[in-house]
Amino acid sequence: MLLVRGGTVVTAEASFRIDVLCGDDGEIAAIGPSLDIPAGCDVLDAGGLLVMPGGVDPHTRIGADAHRMACMGPALLAAGTTTIIDCVTAPRGQGLRAAWRDWRHAARGAGVDVSAHMVVGHWDVDVARGMAEVTQACGVNAFRLSCGGAMDDTQVMGVIDHALALGALCAFDGHGGQVAAYLRAGLHRAGIEGAEAQALSCAAPIEGSGIARAIMMAGVLGAPVHVGPVSTRDGVDAIAAARLRGQRVSAEVLPRHLVLEADDDDAPACDDGLPPLRDGAQHASLWGALAAGVLGMSASGAGGDGTDAMPDLVGRMGLLWHHGVRAGRLSAEEFVAITSANAARAFNIHPRKGAIMVGADADLLLWDPQAPARVLSSCRGAPTVSGAVRHVVRGGVVAWSSTHPCVAGGGAYVDRPCFGRDLAPRVRRRAHLAAEGG
Amino acid sequence: MLLVRGGTVVTAEASFRIDVLCGDDGEIAAIGPSLDIPAGCDVLDAGGLLVMPGGVDPHTRIGADAHRMACMGPALLAAGTTTIIDCVTAPRGQGLRAAWRDWRHAARGAGVDVSAHMVVGHWDVDVARGMAEVTQACGVNAFRLSCGGAMDDTQVMGVIDHALALGALCAFDGHGGQVAAYLRAGLHRAGIEGAEAQALSCAAPIEGSGIARAIMMAGVLGAPVHVGPVSTRDGVDAIAAARLRGQRVSAEVLPRHLVLEADDDDAPACDDGLPPLRDGAQHASLWGALAAGVLGMSASGAGGDGTDAMPDLVGRMGLLWHHGVRAGRLSAEEFVAITSANAARAFNIHPRKGAIMVGADADLLLWDPQAPARVLSSCRGAPTVSGAVRHVVRGGVVAWSSTHPCVAGGGAYVDRPCFGRDLAPRVRRRAHLAAEGG
Amino acid sequence: MLLVRGGTVVTAEASFRIDVLCGDDGEIAAIGPSLDIPAGCDVLDAGGLLVMPGGVDPHTRIGADAHRMACMGPALLAAGTTTIIDCVTAPRGQGLRAAWRDWRHAARGAGVDVSAHMVVGHWDVDVARGMAEVTQACGVNAFRLSCGGAMDDTQVMGVIDHALALGALCAFDGHGGQVAAYLRAGLHRAGIEGAEAQALSCAAPIEGSGIARAIMMAGVLGAPVHVGPVSTRDGVDAIAAARLRGQRVSAEVLPRHLVLEADDDDAPACDDGLPPLRDGAQHASLWGALAAGVLGMSASGAGGDGTDAMPDLVGRMGLLWHHGVRAGRLSAEEFVAITSANAARAFNIHPRKGAIMVGADADLLLWDPQAPARVLSSCRGAPTVSGAVRHVVRGGVVAWSSTHPCVAGGGAYVDRPCFGRDLAPRVRRRAHLAAEGG
Amino acid sequence: MLLVRGGTVVTAEASFRIDVLCGDDGEIAAIGPSLDIPAGCDVLDAGGLLVMPGGVDPHTRIGADAHRMACMGPALLAAGTTTIIDCVTAPRGQGLRAAWRDWRHAARGAGVDVSAHMVVGHWDVDVARGMAEVTQACGVNAFRLSCGGAMDDTQVMGVIDHALALGALCAFDGHGGQVAAYLRAGLHRAGIEGAEAQALSCAAPIEGSGIARAIMMAGVLGAPVHVGPVSTRDGVDAIAAARLRGQRVSAEVLPRHLVLEADDDDAPACDDGLPPLRDGAQHASLWGALAAGVLGMSASGAGGDGTDAMPDLVGRMGLLWHHGVRAGRLSAEEFVAITSANAARAFNIHPRKGAIMVGADADLLLWDPQAPARVLSSCRGAPTVSGAVRHVVRGGVVAWSSTHPCVAGGGAYVDRPCFGRDLAPRVRRRAHLAAEGG
Repeated sequence: MLLVRGGTVVTAEASFRIDVLCGDDGEIAAIGPSLDIPAGCDVLDAGGLLVMPGGVDPHTRIGADAHRMACMGPALLAAGTTTIIDCVTAPRGQGLRAAWRDWRHAARGAGVDVSAHMVVGHWDVDVARGMAEVTQACGVNAFRLSCGGAMDDTQVMGVIDHALALGALCAFDGHGGQVAAYLRAGLHRAGIEGAEAQALSCAAPIEGSGIARAIMMAGVLGAPVHVGPVSTRDGVDAIAAARLRGQRVSAEVLPRHLVLEADDDDAPACDDGLPPLRDGAQHASLWGALAAGVLGMSASGAGGDGTDAMPDLVGRMGLLWHHGVRAGRLSAEEFVAITSANAARAFNIHPRKGAIMVGADADLLLWDPQAPARVLSSCRGAPTVSGAVRHVVRGGVVAWSSTHPCVAGGGAYVDRPCFGRDLAPRVRRRAHLAAEGG
Repeated sequence: MLLVRGGTVVTAEASFRIDVLCGDDGEIAAIGPSLDIPAGCDVLDAGGLLVMPGGVDPHTRIGADAHRMACMGPALLAAGTTTIIDCVTAPRGQGLRAAWRDWRHAARGAGVDVSAHMVVGHWDVDVARGMAEVTQACGVNAFRLSCGGAMDDTQVMGVIDHALALGALCAFDGHGGQVAAYLRAGLHRAGIEGAEAQALSCAAPIEGSGIARAIMMAGVLGAPVHVGPVSTRDGVDAIAAARLRGQRVSAEVLPRHLVLEADDDDAPACDDGLPPLRDGAQHASLWGALAAGVLGMSASGAGGDGTDAMPDLVGRMGLLWHHGVRAGRLSAEEFVAITSANAARAFNIHPRKGAIMVGADADLLLWDPQAPARVLSSCRGAPTVSGAVRHVVRGGVVAWSSTHPCVAGGGAYVDRPCFGRDLAPRVRRRAHLAAEGG
Repeated sequence: MLLVRGGTVVTAEASFRIDVLCGDDGEIAAIGPSLDIPAGCDVLDAGGLLVMPGGVDPHTRIGADAHRMACMGPALLAAGTTTIIDCVTAPRGQGLRAAWRDWRHAARGAGVDVSAHMVVGHWDVDVARGMAEVTQACGVNAFRLSCGGAMDDTQVMGVIDHALALGALCAFDGHGGQVAAYLRAGLHRAGIEGAEAQALSCAAPIEGSGIARAIMMAGVLGAPVHVGPVSTRDGVDAIAAARLRGQRVSAEVLPRHLVLEADDDDAPACDDGLPPLRDGAQHASLWGALAAGVLGMSASGAGGDGTDAMPDLVGRMGLLWHHGVRAGRLSAEEFVAITSANAARAFNIHPRKGAIMVGADADLLLWDPQAPARVLSSCRGAPTVSGAVRHVVRGGVVAWSSTHPCVAGGGAYVDRPCFGRDLAPRVRRRAHLAAEGG
Repeated sequence: MLLVRGGTVVTAEASFRIDVLCGDDGEIAAIGPSLDIPAGCDVLDAGGLLVMPGGVDPHTRIGADAHRMACMGPALLAAGTTTIIDCVTAPRGQGLRAAWRDWRHAARGAGVDVSAHMVVGHWDVDVARGMAEVTQACGVNAFRLSCGGAMDDTQVMGVIDHALALGALCAFDGHGGQVAAYLRAGLHRAGIEGAEAQALSCAAPIEGSGIARAIMMAGVLGAPVHVGPVSTRDGVDAIAAARLRGQRVSAEVLPRHLVLEADDDDAPACDDGLPPLRDGAQHASLWGALAAGVLGMSASGAGGDGTDAMPDLVGRMGLLWHHGVRAGRLSAEEFVAITSANAARAFNIHPRKGAIMVGADADLLLWDPQAPARVLSSCRGAPTVSGAVRHVVRGGVVAWSSTHPCVAGGGAYVDRPCFGRDLAPRVRRRAHLAAEGG
């Protein structure tokens, strides 16, 4: 047992001075002011610290690679993240379930809790069967797709419809697709490559259009939808408009897109399949959308492969704290919503994850809100961060400390139930939605 | 002590099967699965019921009238409301503090917990002093104004600026003002009166413009702002746009505006100083805005004077449950956010009100989610409602039950602290906001 | 020679009392107050009438069918239309140029002036060659495509890019495509067919998304674009937003979508490949967009095959006059812009068509603005129209009169030059557009 | 008589190679290809030049000052402007008609044609009578007001309503008012003055709100409205939204706001009562709005008093040509619409002004489209311009030439008829508008 004592608990809902007792089963056993110390219980002094739910990262791209997974674990914990939802792509010829199994095996030593999005890159009977299997047997409740990519609209509609029937969510990125590829091919012929080509080909209107299209397709089927990474005002506007029509849309943003300037982006490493850096006007739109709840969560997109050149993983908490909370754009409660609670909600693992309540997983981030501002020097663009991770508790055990950076191994698999009754109220009848369209 | 046992607790954050123990101090003493029954503790069986925070009504208009207040209490409790924030207007010649004192005296027998917004109808040195007094000595942290009314823009700016310095919020209605009065005078000359005149004079663009103007004025001063009642898409759009720019705007809606059709509105009683009924396209916008969180809370506008002809008070919970939760537009957690938590947050009494956690006030609504749909026949327009209030706990005591509709007296005064540090992060520097304006 | 005397000339620019002299070459020879009557000149008394440019219909669907073409001519003239731009689809296996030649032959007896859009339904080397041939040799300067249809995004981008290089415009409809087809297949399985299926499957968000997508694709290539028929606010909003970003977008509307209610639509004939009827809120958006110039022109979509069940052709002028000009929504000059001038401009045949100036084609509509309101009884939905066609002059000759409804034969081919220098200033550099995207 | 021969006539509607014959009555006598030279007719060689309508400047601020007026005339002609609509403010105690008379006297030697907007700064019976007099006896058809200034909403509504009854238009600026003054007073106390204070106090949201409010007030009365100078995207969005709802709104922009950067603005002279300079994102919005027709006309705001430090007057044509036409944002026809035709239309002097047709005033700008780009060095911020004024014809006489810059005197008064029947179709019934509001 572990008693986290003397801290200020901050959840997405409220802040209060209270102690947290973690049980031996890895769950939170009790919450209360000045809890007694049970016999044989370790005590973690949280004086002066904020006690938050451990970070939930809803979009990593590590895949079925045990080595990468083992490398990423400590970095994730050091960054305050205790749970990741990783994108898993089935190699050609392999079914979704088998791909999930390989990934599950590779992820055993991650050191963080893991869960999976299965990537759907084409559509046929085998994929349909695979989708059913992983939702029913593997605790997967979301599929990732690209809009405007290899699948045509009929196929994308088929995937959304099938996912809906299975009680699963579709998650779309919108920044690439064939239009960007077409432009990129032309740039290639003109000798323009790398980050510059990515910036010119993944233009803001393309991302906005891709996101709007995914939202529309889900909407006419009465399906909720997740989109991101969102890096543009065009994307934000599409999400905000759909939400105002009553459609359920969740969305993620990468920290890089909140502060890094497109003009500082000269190194080729940025061409990593994620949206290019944008300018300051786009940053302002994304911050506004975070404060407004239109963008609900931050993700890292981390892949364990050079992506630590970006501040998305290692600077995720500190960047949002410094430019968000300290700058007066976000409250501490909103910080928690963005770094853990909303992702847990969107992917149906709340309140097990993303919350501090009796029975929830004992995953805690002990955050020092006073740690001074500093340049995150290992990263390109070198944004300023502040605040600091002091201790990370995962499953009721101290998994990482700034004073003892030796990490506990392990890492549980997080079964994500399908939306079933939870999703049900969110599903409108098709005809209804169609009729109220305009 | 009172143990609420066997129910499903629903907060704005999550739902879970858990018991709630109310202490003799009127606060929640413990929350946990299968709590033991302390000696001498009453037990309230919540089997099959949802246990929610007692309703918080952020906008009533009863005023310093002990008789009305005494009449309203039972009706409020029966409707599931345990806390009201009442609008208090100082009679001509009386200062704000004295007016508050009179109102406080009249509200002693309300039977619900009470708190106050002080109405500011003009601006001079006395008003400024009164604002300081009620914020510092009376637990008032918000002032209600009309945009485009008797005060000119310079005066409204003065009020907002002064409130900001005091750590208090300004709350605006936007549907009336001089433009509506001008049109109404013309309609009067043409012989058009009553509800028809109100509908024609309080046209949708006027409300939208009034709300947008209040938001703009607060925005250039770096102040958060509350607006409502919001009855139009124009109003929703103004709020959504401001929130996407990062401005802090909270907003309220009246249940009548979610379902009652303008065309059914032939009785003169509707001309009650609140926005007129609108058509179905406006309803759809308001529902979308509720689901999107752009409209965060419902209010009743109830005044104890004939206003029970409208479903805003007596049908508040049932209307939102039926047309919101049952219709698939809202989740049960969102229902709680809209009926209690968000109002408590906006007016800085959360988590004391609007939450179910240890140390919070033991105000609980035991809601029967299965109660069948029925016409709310005492009301004009007669909307359909479903679900039902079974028991209401206020301050740890059963204050109302559907089986024993005898109400406990009393009702505490709810001191609302100024925003101080809580408001601080929400305040931008003026020049900053001005510069990023467009 | 023909002197049109005593009327009020109305163009898109201005109205003035002036005479028009049509020369023997079919062009306007002189315009002036009280022109002398040349020897041997016929005189057409336009007293009390408005003299407008003959109607230009930018979207008919007659095709290479001499019989239909012959039937349509008189109807078109009687409706005040003197020029059509017909959509021509190449049968499978036939090249664009050959298809154009067949159509050109069939259109010889149309009785109105004819011009062609070539439909591009797939993309390969032969289509690319055909596009070059018809632009360079046949006077075709626009191609019609569907967004989200059989071609994938890469192919659509290829067509737009190629058209831009040829100095031609792409015109998109946005209401159908694979998403609508997917929904329709589901409706078919549920036994829902005909107009109801069309209404449910061609939902407003699909049209909006299709139009937005076409605009985005053209925009990132720096190409102007034409869209329509537009029947929804979603479509209007997409066009307005693009225009406000500086993109060149022209758009057409069908008269049916301005007045006919979806609920009156019970006959299966409406399932004609055009957008379904919408409700009154959509009508209001379309009228606003016409007044604002966001929708610039009306089209009939007429195909000579049962489409006269709709008011788009026979009621085009009278419907716009009655519900537009008489209702105070449009000025007479705007009526001319919408019925002739803007279509002529968009497709590069202005001021030869759509204008009344020396050297322009002598195509005139003599319109009786006082003709009383009446139900257009031959049409479904039976909209009210007013005003009336009294005489139609085509090529300097009276081709139709309400008193002598015998139509002159003939009908010239209208060569539409590619945009060349005219298009040039409208084309932005790609990188420029991409950069300013957001 | 004067024959302008060999040029390319460009109107808002079309461009064509044609000659223009100016009659001795100051009107255009004939237009045609290769016109014969009447006996005794002067010939002006327009070879290689564009022949456009003389510039109409819809917003100057010279006032009843004969000296300033005499100074401005040559500068106006040299800049291609042949007609101004000047803002005339009645000194305290003087009625509108008397003020107009004084101004009319002072303007006799202007050298350009003159017309007046009467400024309405307060509202009482005398102002109402004055408004009636100047509309009925002085050829004034528009009144200028500020929104949010000294008049309260009731008074502004009174002015709009009275103007509407008189057949006159109200024109509003939206950038100042009490909110800006309030902020400015605070800045003054903080020691911030001049252009910096203007920029901070006339923040973009204030202008947007002021414009939106003026549009709303006119809209609920069913009145058309003119707004400007517009310098922000907020303003543009308000105009575009109103136009899409079908409301008639015209708007003007100052050239300075299209290209000058706020950051280059360090000299105090900019604090001239006009909106402050904005940043590049705002520029892009204004250019888009010009291309889309949402902003229809450019004005100079010139006052003859130091305002030539800005490029609005002297660089008006060249700036729009260079950054508009040459940059591919505008066509030559749109350039004419923006510099003359749309202002003439909005203020009901079209086609007498702003058009080239028989019977129109013979005011012509002979423009050299090939004149190279150069810095407009006399102006602050020094924007680049291109193209050049070669000759200016006013009333059929060469009034200014680049080779003989001696200006003809004179200058006619331009009577602007009230809107009467022209306005009529634009006026909606109030109840109608109110009902369709949302």
